[in-house]
Amino acid sequence: MADYNSFPRLILNKEVCLNNISRMSSKIGINSSIRPHFKTHNSAMVGEWFRDAGINKITVTSPAMALKFIQNGWKDITIAFPFNPNWIDFINTYGKDVSLNLCIESPEVLSFLLKNLKVPAGIFLKIDIGSGRTGIAPYDTTLINNLLKMLISSEKMTFRGFLSHAGHTYHANGKDAIMNIYKTSAETMQLLKTEYALQFPSLISSYGDTPSCSLMPTLSHFDEYRPGNYVFYDLMQYYLGSCTFSDIALTVACQVVSTHVQRDEAVVHCGAVHLSKDFISVNDRKVYGRIIMYDDAFNMTIPDEEAFIYSLSQEHGIISAPPKFIQRLKPGQTIGIIPVHSCLTAYQLGYFY
Amino acid sequence: MADYNSFPRLILNKEVCLNNISRMSSKIGINSSIRPHFKTHNSAMVGEWFRDAGINKITVTSPAMALKFIQNGWKDITIAFPFNPNWIDFINTYGKDVSLNLCIESPEVLSFLLKNLKVPAGIFLKIDIGSGRTGIAPYDTTLINNLLKMLISSEKMTFRGFLSHAGHTYHANGKDAIMNIYKTSAETMQLLKTEYALQFPSLISSYGDTPSCSLMPTLSHFDEYRPGNYVFYDLMQYYLGSCTFSDIALTVACQVVSTHVQRDEAVVHCGAVHLSKDFISVNDRKVYGRIIMYDDAFNMTIPDEEAFIYSLSQEHGIISAPPKFIQRLKPGQTIGIIPVHSCLTAYQLGYFY
Repeated sequence: MADYNSFPRLILNKEVCLNNISRMSSKIGINSSIRPHFKTHNSAMVGEWFRDAGINKITVTSPAMALKFIQNGWKDITIAFPFNPNWIDFINTYGKDVSLNLCIESPEVLSFLLKNLKVPAGIFLKIDIGSGRTGIAPYDTTLINNLLKMLISSEKMTFRGFLSHAGHTYHANGKDAIMNIYKTSAETMQLLKTEYALQFPSLISSYGDTPSCSLMPTLSHFDEYRPGNYVFYDLMQYYLGSCTFSDIALTVACQVVSTHVQRDEAVVHCGAVHLSKDFISVNDRKVYGRIIMYDDAFNMTIPDEEAFIYSLSQEHGIISAPPKFIQRLKPGQTIGIIPVHSCLTAYQLGYFY
Repeated sequence: MADYNSFPRLILNKEVCLNNISRMSSKIGINSSIRPHFKTHNSAMVGEWFRDAGINKITVTSPAMALKFIQNGWKDITIAFPFNPNWIDFINTYGKDVSLNLCIESPEVLSFLLKNLKVPAGIFLKIDIGSGRTGIAPYDTTLINNLLKMLISSEKMTFRGFLSHAGHTYHANGKDAIMNIYKTSAETMQLLKTEYALQFPSLISSYGDTPSCSLMPTLSHFDEYRPGNYVFYDLMQYYLGSCTFSDIALTVACQVVSTHVQRDEAVVHCGAVHLSKDFISVNDRKVYGRIIMYDDAFNMTIPDEEAFIYSLSQEHGIISAPPKFIQRLKPGQTIGIIPVHSCLTAYQLGYFY
């Protein structure tokens, strides 16, 4: 039976992925290391590409994701999400054989671990360096001292250092603003590190986010880097300046449903459940995705300057494009979309071509 | 092992669903019928609740969804999405035993069906009554006549009538505007029906959308109604005026990750991959979900007026709420979120509690 269910489908360009993986690794300074975040791909296969590139420690977002990669042989995993007490049985089961690092930001949760943790675990204190999502304020030394005092009393837990995520680079206005966030973060984390280095000589500073790690020519200001999105990149990263179109490894192949030449529009079977409702404002227009064409080997063209998805419902997207572009489209034809966020798109479509 | 993977989770209130199903059915006039859209729930179990309420014909969005309900015994299905040539084997396989209706809006696609369809199928012409997504302009009688002429020549296809979806009610400003869209749509579709009734005496007008069907006291202006979202409702429907809080059947239970009393915020493990990035602007603030508490039986409270999700990243949501509200929250505690779009949320979380 013709595969009525085969679109929309993710198209992944392995060669571009491998280039992205090796380019980032090559920028890491000799006193620093990389622990890529695997949430963007969340794929055992893509994980192997990282392993082939010499990477042996990773970051994940949840015990479920950790388990997936433990089952694929990964042995050194940071769960970069504030520890939740209902993870305890998972940690006590898998922490025996795998080196697990957890993130802590409150005494309540740490005292729960003191009582219930039965295996060794590394502990990072999550520092809020400006993204305002989770974490301890870097100047809140009372809280930090309090947590470290509790940590020292533990036989199971080892303090690994301070972990931060510069999520606010995604809202920064231009490359300079992103690099300024990087520099400020580096100063903040360096101060913290200096303050506690005497007491904890092996503590490290860990930092992550794709925009600043992509823009910086070298990465040697933190001990550990945790970018994730760079394996695929996406339209958001393109507009932030983190990548070029030819660095984008992930697109969505979908089919044209209908064309409406009189209003310069076409409808595709690819909607909010496939792409997510994230958009980018470009010249006051909402852009939910840019349009590309594939050749027979699913290599993509540079996107047409004026063709983009401007509206999404559950399963449909509406393309706005010049008449010449719309006239070339036919119902049933396969075209490609560069998604705004590859993380969300990969999660929602959930498999790779 | 404690179930570290059990949140976020959908909480479905069956009693509220059953009330929503029967309330809508009770408004349908004696010369009209209901063919609910199953895309919102996409669940065999919820489908049974409709069947128990006497419903025997349904609307779906794709062959994959049609197949799911065929396997659950449904025999009369409209695929309310423009027919795509790569569905043909599916239709030729299942159209033998099940009454399938397809939607057409272009001569190219219809001539493909003329050549390739081997089983009986009902055909609706998809009319654009203002939502501007797909469909034929109602005044484009040249195209309609052309399509009908092709349809008459077919031995397999039966013209069922005109199908429309008033998706623009979702952007309407207030209840009156929504009801005006309903009335204008009814007039447009009635004119079309009158024009072709002599030639096709059994043709019907089919109409769908939850906001207007919820607001109208009786539903007798179209021959067939296809609302879908009303089985669950959601925050969008609440703000449109389609429902009250006590009509909302679907919420997302999730866990508090951390609280930040000094900035009136808390972080929950529930993000864009669970809720979708859809938001509603309320008093110039983005609202990605409203916060509720559950009792022990997962019955929900009325949401706190000032507590809402104001920001979403991939797996996190940030709650803004008054200090009193934040102070009551503890890491690991389970709270509830009313999602903006129950369709997207149900699709993304994908199972029911």
